[in-house]
Amino acid sequence: MTTVSIIGNGNMAKAIGGVLAAGGSTVEYLGRAGGAVNGSIVVLAVPYPEVDAVLATYGAQLAGKTVVDITNPVDFATFDGLTVPADSSAAATIAAALPEARVLKAFNTTFAATLASGVNGSHPTTVLIAGDDEDAKAELAALIRAGGLNAVDAGPLSRARELEALGFLQITLAAAERVSWTGGFAVVA
Amino acid sequence: MTTVSIIGNGNMAKAIGGVLAAGGSTVEYLGRAGGAVNGSIVVLAVPYPEVDAVLATYGAQLAGKTVVDITNPVDFATFDGLTVPADSSAAATIAAALPEARVLKAFNTTFAATLASGVNGSHPTTVLIAGDDEDAKAELAALIRAGGLNAVDAGPLSRARELEALGFLQITLAAAERVSWTGGFAVVA
Repeated sequence: MTTVSIIGNGNMAKAIGGVLAAGGSTVEYLGRAGGAVNGSIVVLAVPYPEVDAVLATYGAQLAGKTVVDITNPVDFATFDGLTVPADSSAAATIAAALPEARVLKAFNTTFAATLASGVNGSHPTTVLIAGDDEDAKAELAALIRAGGLNAVDAGPLSRARELEALGFLQITLAAAERVSWTGGFAVVA
Repeated sequence: MTTVSIIGNGNMAKAIGGVLAAGGSTVEYLGRAGGAVNGSIVVLAVPYPEVDAVLATYGAQLAGKTVVDITNPVDFATFDGLTVPADSSAAATIAAALPEARVLKAFNTTFAATLASGVNGSHPTTVLIAGDDEDAKAELAALIRAGGLNAVDAGPLSRARELEALGFLQITLAAAERVSWTGGFAVVA
Protein backbone atom coordinates (compact mmCIF):
# COMPACT_ATOMS: atom_id res chain seq x y z
CA MET A 1 0.00 0.00 0.00
CA THR A 2 1.27 3.43 -0.90
CA THR A 3 1.62 6.10 1.74
CA VAL A 4 0.99 9.66 0.58
CA SER A 5 2.02 12.64 2.70
CA ILE A 6 -0.01 15.80 2.18
CA ILE A 7 1.51 19.03 3.41
CA GLY A 8 -1.32 21.48 4.03
CA ASN A 9 -4.78 21.36 5.49
CA GLY A 10 -6.97 23.45 3.20
CA ASN A 11 -9.77 22.47 0.84
CA MET A 12 -7.39 21.13 -1.79
CA ALA A 13 -5.38 19.12 0.75
CA LYS A 14 -8.56 17.49 2.04
CA ALA A 15 -10.02 16.88 -1.41
CA ILE A 16 -6.83 15.28 -2.75
CA GLY A 17 -6.45 13.22 0.40
CA GLY A 18 -10.03 12.07 0.05
CA VAL A 19 -9.49 10.84 -3.51
CA LEU A 20 -6.30 8.99 -2.64
CA ALA A 21 -7.72 7.47 0.55
CA ALA A 22 -10.76 6.28 -1.41
CA GLY A 23 -8.34 4.55 -3.77
CA GLY A 24 -6.67 2.67 -0.94
CA SER A 25 -3.64 4.87 -0.25
CA THR A 26 -2.62 5.58 3.33
CA VAL A 27 -2.82 9.34 3.67
CA GLU A 28 -1.05 11.41 6.32
CA TYR A 29 -1.44 15.16 6.72
CA LEU A 30 1.53 17.25 7.77
CA GLY A 31 1.53 20.84 8.98
CA ARG A 32 3.86 23.62 7.96
CA ALA A 33 5.79 23.26 11.21
CA GLY A 34 7.50 20.03 10.26
CA GLY A 35 7.50 16.36 11.16
CA ALA A 36 8.52 13.01 9.73
CA VAL A 37 7.53 12.46 6.09
CA ASN A 38 6.48 8.82 5.79
CA GLY A 39 5.05 8.93 2.29
CA SER A 40 6.85 7.96 -0.90
CA ILE A 41 4.63 10.55 -2.57
CA VAL A 42 4.42 14.04 -1.08
CA VAL A 43 1.77 16.55 -2.14
CA LEU A 44 2.65 20.21 -1.61
CA ALA A 45 -0.92 21.37 -0.95
CA VAL A 46 -0.08 24.91 0.11
CA PRO A 47 -0.44 28.21 -1.75
CA TYR A 48 2.56 29.01 -3.94
CA PRO A 49 3.85 31.84 -1.69
CA GLU A 50 4.24 29.28 1.13
CA VAL A 51 6.20 26.75 -0.92
CA ASP A 52 9.60 28.23 -0.10
CA ALA A 53 8.99 27.88 3.63
CA VAL A 54 7.73 24.31 3.18
CA LEU A 55 10.83 23.39 1.19
CA ALA A 56 13.03 24.97 3.86
CA THR A 57 11.32 22.80 6.48
CA TYR A 58 10.93 19.55 4.56
CA GLY A 59 13.37 19.73 1.63
CA ALA A 60 15.99 17.39 3.06
CA GLN A 61 13.35 14.67 3.53
CA LEU A 62 12.10 14.92 -0.07
CA ALA A 63 15.15 13.44 -1.78
CA GLY A 64 14.16 10.31 -3.69
CA LYS A 65 10.45 10.95 -3.29
CA THR A 66 7.75 11.91 -5.77
CA VAL A 67 6.76 15.51 -5.04
CA VAL A 68 3.47 16.80 -6.42
CA ASP A 69 3.11 20.53 -7.07
CA ILE A 70 -0.54 21.61 -7.20
CA THR A 71 -0.03 25.38 -7.13
CA ASN A 72 -1.40 28.16 -9.29
CA PRO A 73 1.05 31.03 -8.78
CA VAL A 74 -1.52 33.73 -9.50
CA ASP A 75 -0.49 37.33 -8.89
CA PHE A 76 -3.37 38.24 -6.59
CA ALA A 77 -2.24 41.87 -6.48
CA THR A 78 -3.09 42.36 -10.15
CA PHE A 79 -5.12 39.21 -10.92
CA ASP A 80 -3.67 39.67 -14.40
CA GLY A 81 -0.89 37.11 -14.58
CA LEU A 82 1.38 34.72 -12.73
CA THR A 83 4.25 35.49 -10.36
CA VAL A 84 6.62 33.09 -12.14
CA PRO A 85 8.55 34.07 -15.31
CA ALA A 86 6.56 33.76 -18.55
CA ASP A 87 8.90 31.09 -19.92
CA SER A 88 8.90 29.03 -16.71
CA SER A 89 6.45 27.65 -14.15
CA ALA A 90 6.01 27.08 -10.44
CA ALA A 91 6.74 23.41 -11.08
CA ALA A 92 10.03 24.21 -12.80
CA THR A 93 11.04 26.41 -9.89
CA ILE A 94 10.21 23.66 -7.40
CA ALA A 95 12.03 21.04 -9.47
CA ALA A 96 15.13 23.25 -9.54
CA ALA A 97 15.00 23.49 -5.74
CA LEU A 98 14.59 19.69 -5.36
CA PRO A 99 17.07 18.12 -7.79
CA GLU A 100 16.86 14.74 -6.05
CA ALA A 101 13.05 14.53 -6.10
CA ARG A 102 10.75 13.43 -8.92
CA VAL A 103 8.55 16.51 -9.32
CA LEU A 104 5.11 16.25 -10.91
CA LYS A 105 2.55 18.93 -11.68
CA ALA A 106 -1.00 17.79 -10.95
CA PHE A 107 -4.33 18.86 -9.44
CA ASN A 108 -3.88 22.55 -10.35
CA THR A 109 -6.60 22.40 -13.04
CA THR A 110 -9.25 20.67 -10.91
CA PHE A 111 -11.23 22.74 -8.43
CA ALA A 112 -11.57 21.12 -4.99
CA ALA A 113 -15.30 20.58 -5.45
CA THR A 114 -14.70 18.52 -8.61
CA LEU A 115 -12.22 16.31 -6.75
CA ALA A 116 -14.68 15.77 -3.91
CA SER A 117 -17.66 15.05 -6.18
CA GLY A 118 -15.77 13.08 -8.81
CA VAL A 119 -17.55 14.91 -11.60
CA ASN A 120 -17.13 18.08 -13.60
CA GLY A 121 -20.51 18.77 -15.14
CA SER A 122 -21.56 15.51 -16.79
CA HIS A 123 -18.02 14.13 -17.05
CA PRO A 124 -15.76 12.34 -14.59
CA THR A 125 -13.20 14.71 -13.10
CA THR A 126 -9.86 14.35 -14.89
CA VAL A 127 -6.55 15.16 -13.23
CA LEU A 128 -3.90 16.32 -15.71
CA ILE A 129 -0.38 15.26 -14.72
CA ALA A 130 2.87 16.61 -16.17
CA GLY A 131 6.32 15.31 -15.29
CA ASP A 132 9.59 13.98 -16.61
CA ASP A 133 9.58 10.72 -14.64
CA GLU A 134 7.27 8.27 -16.40
CA ASP A 135 7.13 5.83 -13.46
CA ALA A 136 6.17 8.56 -11.01
CA LYS A 137 3.44 9.82 -13.34
CA ALA A 138 2.06 6.33 -13.88
CA GLU A 139 2.03 5.60 -10.16
CA LEU A 140 0.15 8.79 -9.29
CA ALA A 141 -2.28 8.24 -12.18
CA ALA A 142 -3.04 4.73 -10.93
CA LEU A 143 -3.73 5.98 -7.40
CA ILE A 144 -6.07 8.68 -8.74
CA ARG A 145 -7.93 6.18 -10.93
CA ALA A 146 -8.26 3.81 -7.96
CA GLY A 147 -9.96 6.72 -6.20
CA GLY A 148 -12.58 6.92 -8.95
CA LEU A 149 -11.31 9.84 -11.00
CA ASN A 150 -9.69 10.00 -14.42
CA ALA A 151 -6.03 10.84 -14.85
CA VAL A 152 -4.34 11.94 -18.07
CA ASP A 153 -0.63 12.23 -18.82
CA ALA A 154 -0.20 15.83 -20.02
CA GLY A 155 3.42 15.39 -21.08
CA PRO A 156 6.80 16.51 -19.72
CA LEU A 157 7.22 18.83 -16.74
CA SER A 158 7.67 21.72 -19.18
CA ARG A 159 3.94 21.39 -19.93
CA ALA A 160 3.36 22.72 -16.40
CA ARG A 161 3.56 26.13 -18.02
CA GLU A 162 0.39 25.40 -20.00
CA LEU A 163 -1.28 23.68 -17.02
CA GLU A 164 -0.62 26.78 -14.94
CA ALA A 165 -2.02 29.00 -17.71
CA LEU A 166 -5.14 26.82 -17.77
CA GLY A 167 -5.40 26.92 -13.98
CA PHE A 168 -5.05 30.71 -13.95
CA LEU A 169 -7.63 31.16 -16.73
CA GLN A 170 -10.05 28.86 -14.92
CA ILE A 171 -9.67 30.83 -11.68
CA THR A 172 -10.25 34.16 -13.45
CA LEU A 173 -13.39 32.77 -15.11
CA ALA A 174 -14.73 31.39 -11.83
CA ALA A 175 -13.96 34.63 -9.99
CA ALA A 176 -15.93 36.46 -12.71
CA GLU A 177 -18.77 33.92 -12.31
CA ARG A 178 -18.40 32.77 -15.93
CA VAL A 179 -17.69 29.18 -14.92
CA SER A 180 -18.67 27.48 -11.68
CA TRP A 181 -16.31 26.69 -8.80
CA THR A 182 -17.93 23.24 -9.01
CA GLY A 183 -17.09 23.05 -12.74
CA GLY A 184 -14.49 24.71 -14.94
CA PHE A 185 -12.66 22.94 -17.74
CA ALA A 186 -13.81 19.35 -18.09
CA VAL A 187 -11.72 16.94 -20.14
CA VAL A 188 -13.65 15.14 -22.86
CA ALA A 189 -11.82 12.04 -24.05
CA MET B 1 -28.03 41.66 -40.43
CA THR B 2 -24.33 41.32 -39.77
CA THR B 3 -21.98 40.33 -42.56
CA VAL B 4 -18.98 38.25 -41.52
CA SER B 5 -16.02 37.76 -43.85
CA ILE B 6 -14.04 34.59 -43.30
CA ILE B 7 -10.56 34.46 -44.81
CA GLY B 8 -9.65 30.82 -45.34
CA ASN B 9 -11.38 27.69 -46.53
CA GLY B 10 -10.29 24.92 -44.18
CA ASN B 11 -12.22 22.95 -41.58
CA MET B 12 -12.18 25.78 -39.07
CA ALA B 13 -13.31 28.35 -41.66
CA LYS B 14 -16.24 26.17 -42.64
CA ALA B 15 -17.17 25.29 -39.04
CA ILE B 16 -17.11 28.92 -37.88
CA GLY B 17 -19.03 30.03 -40.97
CA GLY B 18 -21.60 27.33 -40.29
CA VAL B 19 -22.21 28.52 -36.72
CA LEU B 20 -22.53 32.17 -37.74
CA ALA B 21 -24.75 31.42 -40.74
CA ALA B 22 -27.01 29.31 -38.51
CA GLY B 23 -27.31 32.33 -36.26
CA GLY B 24 -28.47 34.52 -39.10
CA SER B 25 -25.25 36.25 -40.13
CA THR B 26 -24.42 36.70 -43.79
CA VAL B 27 -21.17 34.84 -44.30
CA GLU B 28 -18.72 35.40 -47.16
CA TYR B 29 -15.56 33.38 -47.71
CA LEU B 30 -12.47 35.07 -49.07
CA GLY B 31 -9.34 33.43 -50.45
CA ARG B 32 -5.75 34.32 -49.72
CA ALA B 33 -5.48 36.09 -53.10
CA GLY B 34 -7.55 39.08 -52.10
CA GLY B 35 -10.89 40.67 -52.84
CA ALA B 36 -13.34 43.12 -51.33
CA VAL B 37 -14.01 42.64 -47.62
CA ASN B 38 -17.71 43.29 -47.06
CA GLY B 39 -18.00 42.13 -43.47
CA SER B 40 -17.84 44.32 -40.40
CA ILE B 41 -16.36 41.26 -38.68
CA VAL B 42 -13.42 39.46 -40.31
CA VAL B 43 -12.26 36.03 -39.18
CA LEU B 44 -8.63 35.17 -39.95
CA ALA B 45 -9.20 31.45 -40.40
CA VAL B 46 -5.75 30.60 -41.67
CA PRO B 47 -2.81 28.90 -39.95
CA TYR B 48 -0.61 31.31 -38.03
CA PRO B 49 2.32 31.13 -40.50
CA GLU B 50 -0.02 32.49 -43.21
CA VAL B 51 -1.28 35.46 -41.20
CA ASP B 52 1.48 37.82 -42.33
CA ALA B 53 0.62 37.24 -45.98
CA VAL B 54 -3.09 37.70 -45.29
CA LEU B 55 -2.42 40.98 -43.50
CA ALA B 56 -0.22 42.15 -46.39
CA THR B 57 -3.12 41.45 -48.76
CA TYR B 58 -6.06 42.62 -46.67
CA GLY B 59 -4.62 44.85 -43.94
CA ALA B 60 -5.67 48.17 -45.45
CA GLN B 61 -9.28 46.99 -45.60
CA LEU B 62 -9.36 45.92 -41.94
CA ALA B 63 -9.22 49.38 -40.36
CA GLY B 64 -12.30 49.98 -38.23
CA LYS B 65 -13.40 46.33 -38.41
CA THR B 66 -13.54 43.61 -35.79
CA VAL B 67 -10.79 41.10 -36.63
CA VAL B 68 -10.98 37.64 -35.06
CA ASP B 69 -7.74 35.70 -34.56
CA ILE B 70 -8.36 31.96 -34.20
CA THR B 71 -4.76 30.75 -34.50
CA ASN B 72 -2.72 28.39 -32.36
CA PRO B 73 0.89 29.30 -33.18
CA VAL B 74 2.24 25.83 -32.39
CA ASP B 75 5.87 25.14 -33.23
CA PHE B 76 5.26 22.06 -35.36
CA ALA B 77 9.00 21.45 -35.72
CA THR B 78 9.33 20.63 -32.01
CA PHE B 79 5.67 20.25 -30.97
CA ASP B 80 6.98 21.51 -27.63
CA GLY B 81 5.91 25.14 -27.55
CA LEU B 82 4.63 28.15 -29.42
CA THR B 83 6.39 30.27 -32.04
CA VAL B 84 5.42 33.53 -30.33
CA PRO B 85 7.37 34.98 -27.36
CA ALA B 86 6.47 33.48 -23.97
CA ASP B 87 5.20 36.81 -22.65
CA SER B 88 3.12 37.56 -25.76
CA SER B 89 0.62 35.87 -28.07
CA ALA B 90 -0.35 35.57 -31.71
CA ALA B 91 -3.28 37.88 -30.96
CA ALA B 92 -1.00 40.54 -29.51
CA THR B 93 1.21 40.34 -32.60
CA ILE B 94 -1.80 40.71 -34.89
CA ALA B 95 -3.21 43.59 -32.82
CA ALA B 96 0.14 45.39 -33.10
CA ALA B 97 0.01 44.98 -36.89
CA LEU B 98 -3.58 46.28 -37.06
CA PRO B 99 -3.73 49.30 -34.74
CA GLU B 100 -6.98 50.53 -36.31
CA ALA B 101 -8.84 47.22 -35.99
CA ARG B 102 -10.63 45.77 -32.96
CA VAL B 103 -8.80 42.46 -32.53
CA LEU B 104 -10.42 39.55 -30.70
CA LYS B 105 -9.09 36.11 -29.86
CA ALA B 106 -11.73 33.40 -30.26
CA PHE B 107 -12.33 29.88 -31.58
CA ASN B 108 -8.76 28.70 -30.86
CA THR B 109 -9.88 26.45 -27.99
CA THR B 110 -12.75 24.73 -29.82
CA PHE B 111 -11.94 21.93 -32.25
CA ALA B 112 -13.79 22.19 -35.58
CA ALA B 113 -15.87 19.11 -34.81
CA THR B 114 -17.23 20.69 -31.62
CA LEU B 115 -18.25 23.81 -33.56
CA ALA B 116 -20.02 21.72 -36.17
CA SER B 117 -21.81 19.46 -33.67
CA GLY B 118 -22.56 22.15 -31.10
CA VAL B 119 -21.49 19.87 -28.28
CA ASN B 120 -18.31 18.94 -26.45
CA GLY B 121 -19.07 15.68 -24.70
CA SER B 122 -22.33 16.25 -22.84
CA HIS B 123 -21.99 20.04 -22.78
CA PRO B 124 -22.79 22.75 -25.30
CA THR B 125 -19.66 23.93 -27.09
CA THR B 126 -18.39 27.16 -25.53
CA VAL B 127 -16.33 29.70 -27.46
CA LEU B 128 -13.95 31.67 -25.24
CA ILE B 129 -13.43 35.26 -26.43
CA ALA B 130 -10.69 37.63 -25.29
CA GLY B 131 -10.39 41.25 -26.35
CA ASP B 132 -10.07 44.83 -25.22
CA ASP B 133 -13.16 46.18 -27.03
CA GLU B 134 -16.22 45.27 -25.00
CA ASP B 135 -18.69 46.08 -27.79
CA ALA B 136 -16.84 43.90 -30.30
CA LYS B 137 -16.73 41.01 -27.83
CA ALA B 138 -20.42 41.34 -27.02
CA GLU B 139 -21.38 41.46 -30.71
CA LEU B 140 -19.40 38.33 -31.57
CA ALA B 141 -20.74 36.52 -28.50
CA ALA B 142 -24.32 37.35 -29.53
CA LEU B 143 -23.75 36.01 -33.05
CA ILE B 144 -22.27 32.79 -31.66
CA ARG B 145 -25.16 32.32 -29.24
CA ALA B 146 -27.63 32.93 -32.05
CA GLY B 147 -25.91 30.04 -33.82
CA GLY B 148 -26.67 27.73 -30.91
CA LEU B 149 -23.34 27.66 -29.08
CA ASN B 150 -22.24 29.21 -25.81
CA ALA B 151 -19.84 32.13 -25.69
CA VAL B 152 -17.90 33.32 -22.65
CA ASP B 153 -15.95 36.54 -22.20
CA ALA B 154 -12.46 35.41 -21.20
CA GLY B 155 -11.18 38.89 -20.39
CA PRO B 156 -8.80 41.37 -22.03
CA LEU B 157 -6.77 40.58 -25.14
CA SER B 158 -3.81 39.81 -22.88
CA ARG B 159 -5.68 36.64 -21.84
CA ALA B 160 -5.00 35.38 -25.37
CA ARG B 161 -1.73 34.12 -23.93
CA GLU B 162 -3.63 31.70 -21.69
CA LEU B 163 -6.12 30.83 -24.45
CA GLU B 164 -3.20 29.95 -26.73
CA ALA B 165 -1.63 27.86 -23.96
CA LEU B 166 -4.94 26.03 -23.57
CA GLY B 167 -5.24 25.56 -27.34
CA PHE B 168 -1.70 24.20 -27.56
CA LEU B 169 -2.21 21.82 -24.63
CA GLN B 170 -5.47 20.60 -26.14
CA ILE B 171 -3.77 19.92 -29.49
CA THR B 172 -0.92 17.99 -27.84
CA LEU B 173 -3.41 15.88 -25.89
CA ALA B 174 -5.48 15.13 -29.00
CA ALA B 175 -2.37 14.30 -31.03
CA ALA B 176 -1.39 11.85 -28.27
CA GLU B 177 -4.94 10.42 -28.33
CA ARG B 178 -5.54 11.43 -24.70
CA VAL B 179 -8.52 13.60 -25.62
CA SER B 180 -10.71 13.32 -28.68
CA TRP B 181 -10.59 15.65 -31.70
CA THR B 182 -14.39 15.74 -31.20
CA GLY B 183 -13.91 16.74 -27.54
CA GLY B 184 -11.13 18.45 -25.61
CA PHE B 185 -11.70 20.99 -22.88
CA ALA B 186 -15.40 21.55 -22.27
CA VAL B 187 -16.50 24.60 -20.28
CA VAL B 188 -18.76 23.78 -17.34
CA ALA B 189 -20.64 26.85 -16.13
